[in-house]
Amino acid sequence: MRKLKVGIIGGGGPGAFFGRVHQRALSLDGTRELVAGALRSKPKDAMAAAAEWGIQGYPDYTAMLNAWKDGDIGLDYAVIATPNHMHFAPAMACIEAGLPVMCEKPMTLTVAESETLAKAAKRKKVPFVLAHTYTGHPMMMYARELVQSGAIGEIRKIESWYTQGWLASDLEKSGQKQASWRTDPKRTGLSNCGGDIGTHAFMAATWVSGLSVKRVSARLNAFVKGRVLDDDFNVLAELSNGGTALITATQIAIGYKNDNGFRMFGTKGSVEWHQEAAEQLLVRRGDHDETYWQGGGFYPKSVASYQRAPAGHHEDFLEALGNLHWTLERQIRQIHKEDTPAPFPHPGVDEGVAGMKFVRAAVASSKARGKWTKV
Amino acid sequence: MRKLKVGIIGGGGPGAFFGRVHQRALSLDGTRELVAGALRSKPKDAMAAAAEWGIQGYPDYTAMLNAWKDGDIGLDYAVIATPNHMHFAPAMACIEAGLPVMCEKPMTLTVAESETLAKAAKRKKVPFVLAHTYTGHPMMMYARELVQSGAIGEIRKIESWYTQGWLASDLEKSGQKQASWRTDPKRTGLSNCGGDIGTHAFMAATWVSGLSVKRVSARLNAFVKGRVLDDDFNVLAELSNGGTALITATQIAIGYKNDNGFRMFGTKGSVEWHQEAAEQLLVRRGDHDETYWQGGGFYPKSVASYQRAPAGHHEDFLEALGNLHWTLERQIRQIHKEDTPAPFPHPGVDEGVAGMKFVRAAVASSKARGKWTKV
Amino acid sequence: MRKLKVGIIGGGGPGAFFGRVHQRALSLDGTRELVAGALRSKPKDAMAAAAEWGIQGYPDYTAMLNAWKDGDIGLDYAVIATPNHMHFAPAMACIEAGLPVMCEKPMTLTVAESETLAKAAKRKKVPFVLAHTYTGHPMMMYARELVQSGAIGEIRKIESWYTQGWLASDLEKSGQKQASWRTDPKRTGLSNCGGDIGTHAFMAATWVSGLSVKRVSARLNAFVKGRVLDDDFNVLAELSNGGTALITATQIAIGYKNDNGFRMFGTKGSVEWHQEAAEQLLVRRGDHDETYWQGGGFYPKSVASYQRAPAGHHEDFLEALGNLHWTLERQIRQIHKEDTPAPFPHPGVDEGVAGMKFVRAAVASSKARGKWTKV
Amino acid sequence: MRKLKVGIIGGGGPGAFFGRVHQRALSLDGTRELVAGALRSKPKDAMAAAAEWGIQGYPDYTAMLNAWKDGDIGLDYAVIATPNHMHFAPAMACIEAGLPVMCEKPMTLTVAESETLAKAAKRKKVPFVLAHTYTGHPMMMYARELVQSGAIGEIRKIESWYTQGWLASDLEKSGQKQASWRTDPKRTGLSNCGGDIGTHAFMAATWVSGLSVKRVSARLNAFVKGRVLDDDFNVLAELSNGGTALITATQIAIGYKNDNGFRMFGTKGSVEWHQEAAEQLLVRRGDHDETYWQGGGFYPKSVASYQRAPAGHHEDFLEALGNLHWTLERQIRQIHKEDTPAPFPHPGVDEGVAGMKFVRAAVASSKARGKWTKV
Repeated sequence: MRKLKVGIIGGGGPGAFFGRVHQRALSLDGTRELVAGALRSKPKDAMAAAAEWGIQGYPDYTAMLNAWKDGDIGLDYAVIATPNHMHFAPAMACIEAGLPVMCEKPMTLTVAESETLAKAAKRKKVPFVLAHTYTGHPMMMYARELVQSGAIGEIRKIESWYTQGWLASDLEKSGQKQASWRTDPKRTGLSNCGGDIGTHAFMAATWVSGLSVKRVSARLNAFVKGRVLDDDFNVLAELSNGGTALITATQIAIGYKNDNGFRMFGTKGSVEWHQEAAEQLLVRRGDHDETYWQGGGFYPKSVASYQRAPAGHHEDFLEALGNLHWTLERQIRQIHKEDTPAPFPHPGVDEGVAGMKFVRAAVASSKARGKWTKV
Repeated sequence: MRKLKVGIIGGGGPGAFFGRVHQRALSLDGTRELVAGALRSKPKDAMAAAAEWGIQGYPDYTAMLNAWKDGDIGLDYAVIATPNHMHFAPAMACIEAGLPVMCEKPMTLTVAESETLAKAAKRKKVPFVLAHTYTGHPMMMYARELVQSGAIGEIRKIESWYTQGWLASDLEKSGQKQASWRTDPKRTGLSNCGGDIGTHAFMAATWVSGLSVKRVSARLNAFVKGRVLDDDFNVLAELSNGGTALITATQIAIGYKNDNGFRMFGTKGSVEWHQEAAEQLLVRRGDHDETYWQGGGFYPKSVASYQRAPAGHHEDFLEALGNLHWTLERQIRQIHKEDTPAPFPHPGVDEGVAGMKFVRAAVASSKARGKWTKV
Repeated sequence: MRKLKVGIIGGGGPGAFFGRVHQRALSLDGTRELVAGALRSKPKDAMAAAAEWGIQGYPDYTAMLNAWKDGDIGLDYAVIATPNHMHFAPAMACIEAGLPVMCEKPMTLTVAESETLAKAAKRKKVPFVLAHTYTGHPMMMYARELVQSGAIGEIRKIESWYTQGWLASDLEKSGQKQASWRTDPKRTGLSNCGGDIGTHAFMAATWVSGLSVKRVSARLNAFVKGRVLDDDFNVLAELSNGGTALITATQIAIGYKNDNGFRMFGTKGSVEWHQEAAEQLLVRRGDHDETYWQGGGFYPKSVASYQRAPAGHHEDFLEALGNLHWTLERQIRQIHKEDTPAPFPHPGVDEGVAGMKFVRAAVASSKARGKWTKV
Repeated sequence: MRKLKVGIIGGGGPGAFFGRVHQRALSLDGTRELVAGALRSKPKDAMAAAAEWGIQGYPDYTAMLNAWKDGDIGLDYAVIATPNHMHFAPAMACIEAGLPVMCEKPMTLTVAESETLAKAAKRKKVPFVLAHTYTGHPMMMYARELVQSGAIGEIRKIESWYTQGWLASDLEKSGQKQASWRTDPKRTGLSNCGGDIGTHAFMAATWVSGLSVKRVSARLNAFVKGRVLDDDFNVLAELSNGGTALITATQIAIGYKNDNGFRMFGTKGSVEWHQEAAEQLLVRRGDHDETYWQGGGFYPKSVASYQRAPAGHHEDFLEALGNLHWTLERQIRQIHKEDTPAPFPHPGVDEGVAGMKFVRAAVASSKARGKWTKV
């Protein structure tokens, strides 16, 4: 089986970390490899970073795309790992050129951009996967299958959260790169906390349940002095089936690393998942609880085809992201009629647009003192 | 040391359970004993129940109070274990007669009643403890001392919740007694879920932190068909120091028994407590977490004086309620100049009024589509 | 229903704690009360302690028994809460006098004493319950019913442990009372760690499974300098059905309070229980795990009759010990033809003898360098 | 930075899984790649498997080594992923040829083979890493640094275990490949359970603590009918510092997947680690417990240099194995004077020999009815 060739855009600066994370995640199956990159915004830096990574360097993404179009380099897809405000342009360029995309989330800086992007991707029929890493956890995929099969009945309520503490102080003033761009409206958009991690909580709630959010009532806080954008994000949401969701995220909870998870309460039972114990899914039946462990024989084929190791040999963060790359790989191989298992319905452009609209509505509602606002 | 004598009002019917729970909780130290009761609303039933319990029976609470005033029976305090709508009258009668009270929560049916009661108790200087059982857990008492000592800095955000599943179906239609009165506005007041368990979440948030709630934005749901009152209760709250609290309760989460707990995020650290693992308190310092186990040498004297067994020998639900009785006992002994350790500041009439106002505001806000409403 | 009257022998000295624990445990149901005691070994101290406790004092247990025989005081049973070397004499005296006994464990100082006691109790048909507190936990009782019903098939292997850290340093040199007598061969017998907590691990293994131990291979250690008796106890055991048990206890595991529990592996599944999360029982079925929570509707009647509060309202250490008192109460009421649910088969004299023989064999095997030794 | 080129021996048959696991683990950093393999024992099968994997195939490992020696292919090291009885010959061939080795454990079939191998590797100064995957978990590496720095004082006792259930029935009779060779003395050696997973428990105990095992007393069981080798493995061990270790492994614990972990009790504190929650390390200080999470700022440089993602983004099984490949990579780069952080002291030939001797002594002791046997 041939290896897919991947080019990366962004993610190579000092203090960046997600470029390397994508490299690892895409490399781990041995069926994809990173071969090229426009790793930084300054051409010179970009070339130097590529040399250090041992891949073919380009001064910018246009140059990389041109080299591909000219047949100078083979590429099967591109990874976009730049800050939020630089997702749209390269993603559009790839799509227009017909190169499939793995794009970091949130999808774009504005709702309008995301809609343009979605339309283009559909028109051009270019595979596009949004890097909502946690949806790649097999037990989250299994939760989706379980919930959407009706195993817990009609959903009444969802609690979905993402709790972190790394921005509890004004880290951005120290020049820390991750903190700087995330708290800067120009580079991050309308919302810091909501856009960065509230979207994960939103995605878990909607992608797992199959429901959408119709209206929201929100309260966003900027607890750390001097911060313009929210570092705390609280949303009550009305679901498409009339249920209620509580979607919260915070960056000021000292000591919490990545406490991301959800609970869904249906008419027949409940499910609960925690990213920090990602290998387990808890299903509550009423008189007892059941714990399912990653890799069990109970997997439907759709999930089983993503299994790399036997039960008990946990796969975690990189493997979850690897699964999104695997889904994109499968979409690409399908197009080329190569042998491949079916791709799982991981988030793409539609989910990206929904996430952008959700954040926009939450920001508007908070400004209107919690007024219920249409998404 | 003499044993305190206790009379009970209500709690003795078939299907009731809290009467027996109070009997056990007050008996367990061997320093208090239940001697009398007006256990049921019908005089005949009340007498029969008392005979079965092996205590002195009275046809109603007035008769019991009269017997006490006449010196026919010795009583040190009364326990009020009736449904919500029957708290006010007997509580007022006890207070007017000068008999200390252990009252079930929520304190009364209406805010007005609660204010009348609070005024009376203060005027007459009668000890009054509100049975917010969970505040009797030593680790919750320790959390209060810790947080109010400034150990986690200024509080920015509180999450406080109470998640149950026992009312996920229309149990009240089966005639189950606990379900029937709780879902009936005449006996339970403005709110079922909020009044019954939302008040616990409210009490944890405010009593532990020392903060009060100024304004709320709420969404209450009645998920089960035919139900008039809420079975799901979601409140965003503005705290007196400008912080935000998320206070939630639900009765439709199938499989969840008593998942009650809180997390508080301060400028220096975080604390987290779960009623279902009540013997532990988690303190997050940033680079590592610390777990404190009930009974440790780290207790301040105020908490240590409530310890019954050495570390590792867990005390739980009955002991927590027993601690509230112990607090009332200590208040009573102080008045009588008997030897006693100092009582812990467990919830009393002021907290009772605050709880009533909180529920009222939440109900009003929900009716006004989440409008921020003053408490 | 009349209250049973209880007298206590020992447990009243400064630094003692189990006397008070028994008082609380027996008081908590309101159907038994502590009325008399010979609380300390010196008559004067005994009388003073009783006055402090507010019960009828006696200078020694003989005086208390005589008062009872003379009709001066009503007693239904006696609690023996003295150190190990003073169990036998008062227990024999009670039995000979026909007074039922709740006796602390290990039952006696020597195997010979325990056999004499067992014979006497059987001959006189006097109810006798051994205070193996943890067997009173409802979920341990439920585990016994489940395992003995064949739910996990034939048992192949048992792991049973009790891990503590309180004797990791030479606490006995500080004069701490609990440490002093437990590490003194004259007062504690052949084994400190094995006798004090290894017997709990032994009891869990045998009483829950219904199997007995035939042979042992042991290694006992005295890690703390100057200590004569073991503070660490490791036993491999051959079970009566050919299975293997690993029974371990230690007192030198710093930071571990009461990490007592067991795992049983059968031909059809496994069960697991932890005293520090006593309200849950884990049953492993192969492809998923099931967690049962105390108070569930799945209880057989034998366990349900010991339930005090609804599911989710945890009962713990004192309630577990209270259940043993409840069992003794039920045995006594049965004899007197009083109305009572059936007593659960909690440990009595036979289990007491088995525990003594187990410790003796372990000590002998360890001295013989792990030689497999018949129990 | 150039990528290291890797060849694999074995691991490519149907039903094999560890070949692919190694491929993923070595690929994930993008600094190593699998380029060649002699994947199966039959030449034809080997060539077909290589084609399927998309790597250069060889009919057997000799051919692969010859191609390398002849300069037909570049190789930096070889992975040996065959069953136990086929470790020795290819490992020796690699070493004699000067090609570094990543070898599956247990190192060889017999102690004699392992000693020969160790001598050869030392004589030829060829880097050799033993694939004790769990030692690659960052928190286990951190535990080693912590314990060997004296943070918990002198170690008195170690409990180290590996509990699985997958061989609770006679799976080998179904033809399942993993079960077949592991229960076959010819292919697996003296011990199944001890060799396969008991060695992991042994390695955790010794490699983390820095202590060795001097003598053992063991009981091995073959619970499943018809099985010649052990499926249950219990060892009491005397440590080099006089302490005691309890090293156990079982394959008959239904429902347990990979419950591997250890607890170490020292004179100043305790540490505890569980493979199924590999990202946390528990340190008990006495009055409270501390939990450290993978990726924290508390890492010493030796561990920090292996970090791939920020705190809270868990790395698990594949990353742990990847860390062993990283260690081998660092050893190789050091030899070639390439820029590299220092390799962590992961298990190599000495640890391999120690593991073999430990299993041999345990088997001998069990046959001698638990006689304490020198390792």
